[in-house]
Amino acid sequence: MTSHDLERNLIQRVNVGDMLTRSAWRLGEKEAVIAGDERLTYRALNDRVNAFAHALLDAGYGRGTALLLISGNSIEFLVTYYACAKTGTVCVPINLAWGPNELAYVLGHARARGAVVEAQFVPLISGALAIAEHHDLVDVIVAPGTGAEWEPAPQGTWHTLDAFVDPNATSEPACFVDDRDPLTYLYTSGTTSAPKGVVSSHVAVYIESLTGPIVMHYSDADRSAVVMPLFHTAQLNGLTTGLLYLGGTVVLHRSFDAAALLASIERERITQIFLLPMMYRALIDHPDVSRRDLSSLRLGIYAMAPMAETDVKRVTEVLGCDLALGFGQTEMNPLTTVLLPEQQLSHAGAVGGAVPNVQVAIVNDAGELVPAYTRGEIVYRGPHAMQGYLHDEQATNEAFAGGWFHSGDVGYLDADGVLWFEDRRKDVIKTGGENVASLEVERALYGAEPRIDEVVVVGLPHAHWTEAVVAIVRPRPGSGLTETDVLAAARSALPGFKVPKAVILVDELPRTATGKVQKHLLRSQYRDYFATTAESERA
Amino acid sequence: MTSHDLERNLIQRVNVGDMLTRSAWRLGEKEAVIAGDERLTYRALNDRVNAFAHALLDAGYGRGTALLLISGNSIEFLVTYYACAKTGTVCVPINLAWGPNELAYVLGHARARGAVVEAQFVPLISGALAIAEHHDLVDVIVAPGTGAEWEPAPQGTWHTLDAFVDPNATSEPACFVDDRDPLTYLYTSGTTSAPKGVVSSHVAVYIESLTGPIVMHYSDADRSAVVMPLFHTAQLNGLTTGLLYLGGTVVLHRSFDAAALLASIERERITQIFLLPMMYRALIDHPDVSRRDLSSLRLGIYAMAPMAETDVKRVTEVLGCDLALGFGQTEMNPLTTVLLPEQQLSHAGAVGGAVPNVQVAIVNDAGELVPAYTRGEIVYRGPHAMQGYLHDEQATNEAFAGGWFHSGDVGYLDADGVLWFEDRRKDVIKTGGENVASLEVERALYGAEPRIDEVVVVGLPHAHWTEAVVAIVRPRPGSGLTETDVLAAARSALPGFKVPKAVILVDELPRTATGKVQKHLLRSQYRDYFATTAESERA
Repeated sequence: MTSHDLERNLIQRVNVGDMLTRSAWRLGEKEAVIAGDERLTYRALNDRVNAFAHALLDAGYGRGTALLLISGNSIEFLVTYYACAKTGTVCVPINLAWGPNELAYVLGHARARGAVVEAQFVPLISGALAIAEHHDLVDVIVAPGTGAEWEPAPQGTWHTLDAFVDPNATSEPACFVDDRDPLTYLYTSGTTSAPKGVVSSHVAVYIESLTGPIVMHYSDADRSAVVMPLFHTAQLNGLTTGLLYLGGTVVLHRSFDAAALLASIERERITQIFLLPMMYRALIDHPDVSRRDLSSLRLGIYAMAPMAETDVKRVTEVLGCDLALGFGQTEMNPLTTVLLPEQQLSHAGAVGGAVPNVQVAIVNDAGELVPAYTRGEIVYRGPHAMQGYLHDEQATNEAFAGGWFHSGDVGYLDADGVLWFEDRRKDVIKTGGENVASLEVERALYGAEPRIDEVVVVGLPHAHWTEAVVAIVRPRPGSGLTETDVLAAARSALPGFKVPKAVILVDELPRTATGKVQKHLLRSQYRDYFATTAESERA
Repeated sequence: MTSHDLERNLIQRVNVGDMLTRSAWRLGEKEAVIAGDERLTYRALNDRVNAFAHALLDAGYGRGTALLLISGNSIEFLVTYYACAKTGTVCVPINLAWGPNELAYVLGHARARGAVVEAQFVPLISGALAIAEHHDLVDVIVAPGTGAEWEPAPQGTWHTLDAFVDPNATSEPACFVDDRDPLTYLYTSGTTSAPKGVVSSHVAVYIESLTGPIVMHYSDADRSAVVMPLFHTAQLNGLTTGLLYLGGTVVLHRSFDAAALLASIERERITQIFLLPMMYRALIDHPDVSRRDLSSLRLGIYAMAPMAETDVKRVTEVLGCDLALGFGQTEMNPLTTVLLPEQQLSHAGAVGGAVPNVQVAIVNDAGELVPAYTRGEIVYRGPHAMQGYLHDEQATNEAFAGGWFHSGDVGYLDADGVLWFEDRRKDVIKTGGENVASLEVERALYGAEPRIDEVVVVGLPHAHWTEAVVAIVRPRPGSGLTETDVLAAARSALPGFKVPKAVILVDELPRTATGKVQKHLLRSQYRDYFATTAESERA
């Protein structure tokens, strides 16, 4: 590489770290991030990023080296992420719900050279290091985090963040980084088999970060509460990088706490929030909601699942803000469709129209495009798309077959081009020659039987039906709900072939870190249900 | 290249042609472009683009092949541009003010294989072909344009557009195109020496196209009048691609005509226009301005030069819209700073703050960054930047020296980070050990002497002063303005060393196609002014 190559790269490159550099350059004295009592301007944040970047470079990190990031929503999370970006180091944010086994897997799979770890997660990394069969880890860099005491494990070289970084080395690092160099490996939570490492390029995340500002009209006047975990693509790429690019302000929360969030909205004049639908319900049901001044709120974004029409109306009214649904997936970094505020009621239940950077289509099993209102697999094209799965050429080829990214989701487009998500492809139940979307049965049961607190519908192996529709139900405590009640509700709301062949009542459901129920665990737990239970006992 | 490479490229690539594909996919039946009586939906426009793309592929065009585009603002212009983008063909829009000599130069320099030519420009291409010393041109594809009669020249294979294209071949072409493949070669008008070919990549233009929507809040509800020539970067990249990406509507005009534009605003419910300051003056002074319903207008964008405060107030009031100044240059594709509506009066005379994708700095002659309020060369970084100058490694290295793009402009940043452009670097006059910005002298003279219709200030070689400040003035017709009047005005408004050493009255000034006065021609015309004229005659 000549000096000319580096000079040109520094000018032209599409680098997520430069998004922060430029905001600091334009708006140095503006508040960038607030975490508890700590408030950093763009200049201060960027200085911390640069100092950490120099420390990484001095320690041998750079283009293509992987660095694990094990942290809650903290300034150190953002500092590590942007320092990686500026130096070409690949940031590997770790899902904090994982145990040592998952972490040990990723440690080896990502070939991580180091890890930034908040003190309270030292036991997690120590446990992973103790059991990892193979790893290349050299450095463990411990940030204070929530102030837990910690002891270094025998493996690796342990540093405190303070000792690792010279805070005065704040000059801009000048590293060659290609547009399609990996910015992050984001491991999917692995609802099937081992986690897959989604390789996200700088250019994909850069362009995706501009989508929110364009579609949902963010501006540098926005102040956003960061409540969802930063290790999750939607909070990180969809919202935080976009807002810091514009020059807005982010207020970090370590977790969802309705009272704390309501207080934060009032105190920090928050203009936008991003929560799951159930969190919105908790927010508007909280007694503080009427005691707090929420007048600054402009936009409430939600994800993962449509919100019931009644909830949309209540949230809009109680919080006094617009609502928008963002839909997508890690492999698309992540946003693919948005249900805009004006569509919340007109298209209730849909996941919205394609954002301008994404082409959405539906294909049949032969991979052919199908017309509106025809159900099939949802596929995408667009510059947001991942580079591929790390060290998994076969899975990448399958995902990209035919020049479309195969989402694994099933749904259809309507005549307005609005996408209706029906189910994860693997959750569609094939029963007696028919396809039944598990989500449709779940929605029908929620609507027909208010004593259901939560219901999950899966297909279980069945000699006659191939798969049998089964509802696994957590009743509302003390409601006295029985299996027979659920079946009666199902019969009142669904055609015969969609009515569950069995109902199982449970107290708890297995979940991923982001709150998604892990249907594959339920399917595996109840795999032999119809083998061991006489069918005559069922309806 | 394997089939997997193509599959992935089609999904991930950052391609300006895909911006239109996606709009057509999302909003097929929406009106995309209006030109006179012709109105095309997104689907119809995209179909025409695809048909032309297939014709290009069949004729051997593709990745890296250059195709000249010699057309006014027309649907064929857009069709050719997007068809090139989708196939990787490099589009070379030609400045319509050029003569056969400039065109012959570009023909050879760009190694063009073909040209799309509106019929009225057949004499221009024929003239260029007749005199070109070396060229590789095979095809001349003639579009009807304004309906002129034409005769093929002896050189090249001549096609009518109708014969060249099969309008039924509307499937999406599937071509491998890299993010940094050239989208266009845009030849700068060459105010010094030979024109330089600015190589614009897909990724640069893609990201630049998102800047207007973000900074000036365009939406798919916007309807934009395209009056400035599409061969110019600002109209093409800054506005048209951005609006067609969002799903807005563009209304093509072949030239600026105040009455026609006012009628178009009313008839087409135009929401945004992009004009030069002098065109705004012509618009508000036109008698039709009070007779037309202009209530749809939301935003008036202007470029090239700041607008006088009184003009800002009048335009805002008469047209009833916001104003924003966009500043930049072809090499930055082009937008670098925007003076927002709310800054029009508070920062009158400035060219605005950096857009989020661009880092703006000032460097001294040693290439070192200098602080606020210090004058120096304006330099930029950011993903909008050009790839380089075509076949000119040396000019590219000079332009990119030190990891910044050197604009050739002189100015300073204020404490708010707002950029104040002072002059083109080569127009700064070095006189008696001082630097004098020609623009400052021009502005002072406009303010002090209303009988000046136009004034251009240049430095001419001078034995004593090195360069002497000289004002070349076109008096308002019939005003009786004399050299002495101009000098008196200058003395009343400027410190002594900035007062012109000579005043030259003229009837006309040489201009580029976009209306810029060509100072280099004046400097060369009057090069010997002080050698042949006794200095004692001057003040």
